[in-house]
Amino acid sequence: MRTGIWLVGARGSVAVTSMVGALAIRASLAEPVGCVTELPALRHPALPALSELVFGGHDVSCVGLVKKAQALVAAGVLPAAVVAAVADELSAMEPEVRAAPEGRTQHDTVARITADLADFRARHRLERVVVVNVSSTEPLAAPHPAHADAAALAAALHTEQVLPPSSRYAYAAFTTGCAYVDFTPSTGARLPALDQLAAHHRVPYAGHDGKTGETLLKSVLAPMFAMRNLRVRSWSGTNLLGGGDGATLARPDANAAKVASKQRVLKETLGYEPEGHTRIDYVPDIGDLKTAWDLITFSGFLGSRMRLEFTWHGCDSALAAPLVLDLARLTAAAHAQGEHGALPQLAYFFKDPLGDVPHGLAEQWELLCRWVHGWPLAAADSGSGGPGGAADEHADRVADQDGAQPR
Amino acid sequence: MRTGIWLVGARGSVAVTSMVGALAIRASLAEPVGCVTELPALRHPALPALSELVFGGHDVSCVGLVKKAQALVAAGVLPAAVVAAVADELSAMEPEVRAAPEGRTQHDTVARITADLADFRARHRLERVVVVNVSSTEPLAAPHPAHADAAALAAALHTEQVLPPSSRYAYAAFTTGCAYVDFTPSTGARLPALDQLAAHHRVPYAGHDGKTGETLLKSVLAPMFAMRNLRVRSWSGTNLLGGGDGATLARPDANAAKVASKQRVLKETLGYEPEGHTRIDYVPDIGDLKTAWDLITFSGFLGSRMRLEFTWHGCDSALAAPLVLDLARLTAAAHAQGEHGALPQLAYFFKDPLGDVPHGLAEQWELLCRWVHGWPLAAADSGSGGPGGAADEHADRVADQDGAQPR
Amino acid sequence: MRTGIWLVGARGSVAVTSMVGALAIRASLAEPVGCVTELPALRHPALPALSELVFGGHDVSCVGLVKKAQALVAAGVLPAAVVAAVADELSAMEPEVRAAPEGRTQHDTVARITADLADFRARHRLERVVVVNVSSTEPLAAPHPAHADAAALAAALHTEQVLPPSSRYAYAAFTTGCAYVDFTPSTGARLPALDQLAAHHRVPYAGHDGKTGETLLKSVLAPMFAMRNLRVRSWSGTNLLGGGDGATLARPDANAAKVASKQRVLKETLGYEPEGHTRIDYVPDIGDLKTAWDLITFSGFLGSRMRLEFTWHGCDSALAAPLVLDLARLTAAAHAQGEHGALPQLAYFFKDPLGDVPHGLAEQWELLCRWVHGWPLAAADSGSGGPGGAADEHADRVADQDGAQPR
Amino acid sequence: MRTGIWLVGARGSVAVTSMVGALAIRASLAEPVGCVTELPALRHPALPALSELVFGGHDVSCVGLVKKAQALVAAGVLPAAVVAAVADELSAMEPEVRAAPEGRTQHDTVARITADLADFRARHRLERVVVVNVSSTEPLAAPHPAHADAAALAAALHTEQVLPPSSRYAYAAFTTGCAYVDFTPSTGARLPALDQLAAHHRVPYAGHDGKTGETLLKSVLAPMFAMRNLRVRSWSGTNLLGGGDGATLARPDANAAKVASKQRVLKETLGYEPEGHTRIDYVPDIGDLKTAWDLITFSGFLGSRMRLEFTWHGCDSALAAPLVLDLARLTAAAHAQGEHGALPQLAYFFKDPLGDVPHGLAEQWELLCRWVHGWPLAAADSGSGGPGGAADEHADRVADQDGAQPR
Repeated sequence: MRTGIWLVGARGSVAVTSMVGALAIRASLAEPVGCVTELPALRHPALPALSELVFGGHDVSCVGLVKKAQALVAAGVLPAAVVAAVADELSAMEPEVRAAPEGRTQHDTVARITADLADFRARHRLERVVVVNVSSTEPLAAPHPAHADAAALAAALHTEQVLPPSSRYAYAAFTTGCAYVDFTPSTGARLPALDQLAAHHRVPYAGHDGKTGETLLKSVLAPMFAMRNLRVRSWSGTNLLGGGDGATLARPDANAAKVASKQRVLKETLGYEPEGHTRIDYVPDIGDLKTAWDLITFSGFLGSRMRLEFTWHGCDSALAAPLVLDLARLTAAAHAQGEHGALPQLAYFFKDPLGDVPHGLAEQWELLCRWVHGWPLAAADSGSGGPGGAADEHADRVADQDGAQPR
Repeated sequence: MRTGIWLVGARGSVAVTSMVGALAIRASLAEPVGCVTELPALRHPALPALSELVFGGHDVSCVGLVKKAQALVAAGVLPAAVVAAVADELSAMEPEVRAAPEGRTQHDTVARITADLADFRARHRLERVVVVNVSSTEPLAAPHPAHADAAALAAALHTEQVLPPSSRYAYAAFTTGCAYVDFTPSTGARLPALDQLAAHHRVPYAGHDGKTGETLLKSVLAPMFAMRNLRVRSWSGTNLLGGGDGATLARPDANAAKVASKQRVLKETLGYEPEGHTRIDYVPDIGDLKTAWDLITFSGFLGSRMRLEFTWHGCDSALAAPLVLDLARLTAAAHAQGEHGALPQLAYFFKDPLGDVPHGLAEQWELLCRWVHGWPLAAADSGSGGPGGAADEHADRVADQDGAQPR
Repeated sequence: MRTGIWLVGARGSVAVTSMVGALAIRASLAEPVGCVTELPALRHPALPALSELVFGGHDVSCVGLVKKAQALVAAGVLPAAVVAAVADELSAMEPEVRAAPEGRTQHDTVARITADLADFRARHRLERVVVVNVSSTEPLAAPHPAHADAAALAAALHTEQVLPPSSRYAYAAFTTGCAYVDFTPSTGARLPALDQLAAHHRVPYAGHDGKTGETLLKSVLAPMFAMRNLRVRSWSGTNLLGGGDGATLARPDANAAKVASKQRVLKETLGYEPEGHTRIDYVPDIGDLKTAWDLITFSGFLGSRMRLEFTWHGCDSALAAPLVLDLARLTAAAHAQGEHGALPQLAYFFKDPLGDVPHGLAEQWELLCRWVHGWPLAAADSGSGGPGGAADEHADRVADQDGAQPR
Repeated sequence: MRTGIWLVGARGSVAVTSMVGALAIRASLAEPVGCVTELPALRHPALPALSELVFGGHDVSCVGLVKKAQALVAAGVLPAAVVAAVADELSAMEPEVRAAPEGRTQHDTVARITADLADFRARHRLERVVVVNVSSTEPLAAPHPAHADAAALAAALHTEQVLPPSSRYAYAAFTTGCAYVDFTPSTGARLPALDQLAAHHRVPYAGHDGKTGETLLKSVLAPMFAMRNLRVRSWSGTNLLGGGDGATLARPDANAAKVASKQRVLKETLGYEPEGHTRIDYVPDIGDLKTAWDLITFSGFLGSRMRLEFTWHGCDSALAAPLVLDLARLTAAAHAQGEHGALPQLAYFFKDPLGDVPHGLAEQWELLCRWVHGWPLAAADSGSGGPGGAADEHADRVADQDGAQPR
């Protein structure tokens, strides 16, 4: 079950941390701490092994993978000894990380992504490929009528700037028969036209916005207040972060997308919206060790007033990277099981999950476990037809029919 | 379904807060915030209504209930207007709060408690009574061979100081056919001889140590770390509290019992014991608004080091009181369903629950909900036989047969 | 030494808290906790006694003083018993709190304020009056050429909206021979034309922005880092507050004025500006018990990285009110000593002090103590000429000469 | 002005950090961040330059200096590049770090220390030597009559275990004509007999217990509350630390000494003792990055209740090391100026300073600055008599007269 993981933003902190980690765990240099698919509760033969993952990706940056890994050592994210030990293997991955294509039209851009994905799959004889978006957060996309229909979208790609980058990758993934995971709050596959494409090509997709810090805490604390029938009056959060993601999120438009994603869990879990805001501030000195401070005021029996404060000092890249590996393995396995369309069962991983799902972490965990244990223990491959089969067919269709839209 | 709730420590903060609260909610002066049996997920016809609860109890203190309630107003626990509104009704409860009996022998003491319980039940024509221990934490009890056998225990009561106070109340409750709940970390019903008695008298019991603050947070945060496969390296806690409970817990022996109870959730949930200690310090100025500060250090992917800190400012009496009402209602309903012996399904409420149960709050919640929804929707009374029936029968049996009954 | 204290915003939380407090301390119902002029280090016969202060003021609100005081009881700022005990006296102050005048021109408005001040002084036979601005924070005022010259300003008042409200009060105060203190970050007396007027009328003034919480802490912590030669890398602050001030500060323009005032101490004390921002968020549920959280990252020997976090839960009105009394007493004493113009010696009280002064609290304290102890021990009255003397003269001049501008 | 700094505990974290730091700063590999004698306010020609410091010392450990430095790199205290760059020079210091002598009698032990100090001074042609105790905290010493008199002490050394280790070093230092600084809370020179010896030999001494973290904060925050006339009601502190110091402080006897030292500032600064305790807990995982959490409850105007919490994450070795260099330079300069006996002017550096001194950091700072600026700008050497002079004389006296005690 050789499985490709194609990272959009492959030279960024999260991507490089996940590559280094996968290499280190394979070589028994590190334990798979932080990888939930390594917990006994989630082990399943349908999941590709970490050693079966093959990495590739796109990035607008051209900084070397080893150089980036060394920068992450300096930032305190990666241990120097591990990076030194895997540097050669990491370096060997360089050819698979391509410059992000930029065509004359969006159609051209998509075609080039498609070609890169198909090449990658063929060259490494991969059974399937999962495209994972770990690039920077985009501003909210402008609505467009073609978002509602796959055929209209295929036409619009020739003439208009109709899709934001994250959605171009989803488009390319689906038409190539690849699964797609959005680890960011960007638009990604969340357009009816793209959902139609995923259905047509029978590929699954998941998102949005990996749940790594403050929101992870919200997803266990908000249910605690709800279960105890305590009234949350206000929930205010401040996130201080440096690093590349911090700089992006300091832009008001990206900030807005992120903040909306972060507050959703409260409304969904409590059933009402408490007062308070979530702020994100860029403080370069903080670097990758993000600090979040939250103040929750609540009332209890007979109106008694109480409060909870927490401070989270977490390394976002280190929290995100193992989840990227988990998502690639789970989504590939789902694809192998013949599942397609949105995967609400992966809500556990996301701030802003797809579908009508529980928002409490414990319920999400149970949903995930039940899903995985519903798969047959003998490795299945329904919907794929063996190594290269369906995949190659998809690639051909894309090449021939210009858009691979459903008919 | 008139149900008695007999409070051991009936003039203490928790007891008086629960009395005032029950009166206020009945009178629609307050909403049942903090009462989990009022959540849609737990509503069930088998539960006695709040208006069906009748209060009584024992205490070594003789401060008036209204006076204590006013002291709780001054301490910021109870709202002045509510106390003023229910003062007459509260005052009317005075006759049911008796001086804690102290006989020449422990057998005498138990007999007097038994008599008070039986009188209370008869006088108010209660279908059943739940004895709830909300008195101060005791030191760990010295082991004694008679703890292993009900008959030996009945004999020892005549001649030795064999039972700590909390267990004398459990003994009296069981032999009178009353359920028993221990909201403290004291020994209570946790002796084989008492378990035999509960089985014999077919009464249920529950405990130990109400989960109201720091441990409540541990029971959602520790599972979060476990589910994310993050390694908790140390978990250190400091609890600063004033009030009566604080003074008691400053005594090293009581402190030890409490601290052991507080740390158990980590071992059970994580599967290992992280470094670190839990401290309890008595700071009179803090009063009832307890402050707990916890520092958790943990490591993630590739050994990255991270930390979480929280500060909880919670009013213990206000957090405990609604749970006392919940426990009385749930235990009475279980008794009515014919359940007896330890009730592990109530683990949700306790720091140190009975039985081999999950320690994560979400799993405990699910266990509780499933249990309640397993009861038939038509009010059952198996094992009771109608108002006064089974109860009186128990009292008779106790009188006639079968060891350990005081006369 | 009967001294008037004329509060701009006299029906607001700070003003009413200071009135209630002055009455309570006089009546020995409370100790002067929080009043720094009651510390042995600052006692001086030149200071008017608390019992010599006479209160008056303006406000746009017309809520009764007792009603406001009761609202402050409900908000947890004032103790119920104290408000009950002083309610009659507080009620007796009502006639001295007038509606904020609004004339056809700014000249008219100023003339009415002037008349109110002069009446107040005459009616109560006050030796002098200090006008203290405790109203809401204004947006930054638009620059105007007339701000540079008292004569031009007097002319402009007839035809233009040249002064923001805080400055109209400073204008009126100076021309009536009254001292002026600005407890807010508003413009107040900080215009060259007003400084000329203060010099001409030989009255002192002080400001800006009372230092009550987060900035107070900054003024001791920033010098600590500087004295230890530790490098502060970032200082980020979040202020959550409800109440009237919170609502005002949620307006971006007022917020900007306040935030600039709050950060100044860092630059001045450290000699450089660390990274990070100060945020103010309006959370109505927080009420008057403001919560500020600050994260300071710093580096030490050989680049070691460290951090300090603090959370301040302070009641702004209770922190401000005693300082308002202190400032009135100190400014009146300075006026009596013949001091006029800006009083940099009062920097201790302000976030954004006037003049070229130290910003560390300890140095400001020493400056204050040395200043007070430089006054002769026998009560002086230079520059005033006895009760009513100079003051009446000023009032006459204002009435006669329409503008009282220096020549 | 070549000056020796003889470190008791020379292979410990603080000592090695100060050696590495001095080498790095000399080589311009690092800026003197954290060194207060490098601030403009304290620069003075009487201070020996960092490049004039010569290191030596004793230790019971025999781990190599470079090896220890590398362990400090792993612990995150020292930067790898700096340690690599100074490794050779550090290695060259090895011969000057001797095994802590242990004679048959305490007299023998002292004589061997004396000999090592005299050799060190002679071999490096040092003008003077400062002995600095940076070893682990000792238990409180048992009282002994000979502590009161230098002659009795000299006699007792032959036959009894009369002095704790820290005091043996002070004894040896004084009789060799060396200054002594105690950076720990141990007994050190705080015995009348040792004070007599220092006077006799005209050498200065300083202590106790370097102020590096929680107590540093107390020394600015407690004066803030005092200056604002706010009433501190409780001050509770929890210190979590790993590393060697943590293990020592987990022993109850050492813990007691440290805790007493840490609370002193509150009593001295506030004028009363608030409620609350300071706790020290050993959590190995915390390592050198100590975490202190303090909760301060206080009341203000009219009894309003407020609170301040802080969390300090500080690297103790990195905070202490530059102060060790500062103290050596300042004490050597004082010695050169002819000052002897206790140096209360160094209170700024200590939790538990000698003499009747202010405890607020700002006043201590001013005292320090005034003291340094009282020294003549031309380098003086009174009381020494030139290189080797008085020092050699002392060494001789010690050798000849068995104890060098004044008669």
